[in-house]
Amino acid sequence: MEHIRELLDIKLLGQSFNPSSGHTLSLENAKVIAQLYSKFENGISVLSDMKTRKSYIYYGAVADVLGLTRRQNEINSIWEDELLDVIHTDDLQKKYRLELLYFQLLNTIAVNDRSDYEIITKLRIQRSEGITQFLKHRLLYISSSPDNSIWLALCLYNLIPDYPGFDAPDGLILNTRTGRILGSEEKFPEILSSREKEIMQLIRQGKRSKEIAEKLTLSINTVNRHRQNIFQKLNVSNAIEACRVVEAIELL
Amino acid sequence: MEHIRELLDIKLLGQSFNPSSGHTLSLENAKVIAQLYSKFENGISVLSDMKTRKSYIYYGAVADVLGLTRRQNEINSIWEDELLDVIHTDDLQKKYRLELLYFQLLNTIAVNDRSDYEIITKLRIQRSEGITQFLKHRLLYISSSPDNSIWLALCLYNLIPDYPGFDAPDGLILNTRTGRILGSEEKFPEILSSREKEIMQLIRQGKRSKEIAEKLTLSINTVNRHRQNIFQKLNVSNAIEACRVVEAIELL
Repeated sequence: MEHIRELLDIKLLGQSFNPSSGHTLSLENAKVIAQLYSKFENGISVLSDMKTRKSYIYYGAVADVLGLTRRQNEINSIWEDELLDVIHTDDLQKKYRLELLYFQLLNTIAVNDRSDYEIITKLRIQRSEGITQFLKHRLLYISSSPDNSIWLALCLYNLIPDYPGFDAPDGLILNTRTGRILGSEEKFPEILSSREKEIMQLIRQGKRSKEIAEKLTLSINTVNRHRQNIFQKLNVSNAIEACRVVEAIELL
Repeated sequence: MEHIRELLDIKLLGQSFNPSSGHTLSLENAKVIAQLYSKFENGISVLSDMKTRKSYIYYGAVADVLGLTRRQNEINSIWEDELLDVIHTDDLQKKYRLELLYFQLLNTIAVNDRSDYEIITKLRIQRSEGITQFLKHRLLYISSSPDNSIWLALCLYNLIPDYPGFDAPDGLILNTRTGRILGSEEKFPEILSSREKEIMQLIRQGKRSKEIAEKLTLSINTVNRHRQNIFQKLNVSNAIEACRVVEAIELL
């Protein structure tokens, strides 16, 4: 399986960012929000800027539990590696997989509705002592650029107290407005129709449109229309990219 | 059992508020925080001001689920009755009981550490249709006045999605910094020592210090010292008030 984080880099950082103003939320306001969350929830907030490829990290008290130094931080990366390094690798892969799916889905959603959706993941901390400590992780895309690109992401990490009633789902995408689950670790949503899946399988086998049309007894125009729909749904521009995405989020 | 909400009124609204400035967080900033929570969490935020006896209500999308009109609102009460009215009465009593305990505890805690503590409660919605919908309720005292009185309370109400991993504890006070539970619906913390409880029982029976001293074979000075400690711990100024508090939070 391809490294999902590389694919996320391609997707997130490959977006177009026009220099014009008119973002849904300014960087300065987003920083205030990130800081408030770390203060009021005692967690760690990470605000990542896809345009400048920077992150702003605000350490609340949970940093002590994770053995991280609590100093406000600006890094030249959208990945908070100091923190990600203490997370169990399996959980980290799960997180990346959901993030890719989230990006795919939110790209198709109107700019003003995007903050209704969030990823919630339960993460194990990698520690030598053998005590398993769980973190609740939330990710929200909180601001989009005027050309509809996803610009600012807010990651929130909080302690899950070891007490009945406190828990977090293993990993899913939630619409907080409706309470509806859009996709989870166990079950990814049906982005592609069954016909589209069938065609996507053949694309992965390297088949051309003409061959696919013959095999499925469809006209080449129909196959090409399906192909276009698939690329649009996956937010990709060619077959190779489409294959990478369906593999990464295990769509087929 | 005495009406706990009346006791909360006496406690919360009976605090002294010097007209000087120097609050830990300004009303304007607190309003911004309340608004942000309702926006980013799609819940309802209520900011209550103990000094002016007003509340500021910010309705997120969950208001639709509760059948409430979504308009920003300023009311002349610290109780958001329009919302509280749709909560199951048993759960509401549980909420008030925890709030009283929370007030008692937070009064003894340094002003700057108060925002580390929050109440978390699971509330049933009272609806005619017979579908049980759960809300997660959080309460934080987010600002204190220069004379250490508890000034601004932030209540956050959110939907609990009907999906594994989403839940909330029945009712407890949490320190989000340490993950430690301070007291819960099932088990209130040991505010009073066993000797103090013994004396408090006798005070409730209407016994005077002299009688208590004779009964427990203690000096009257010792009894009076215990009495003072009890009143201080319960944040009350006389025996009648002390009785009301221990009854309300079921301390004995």
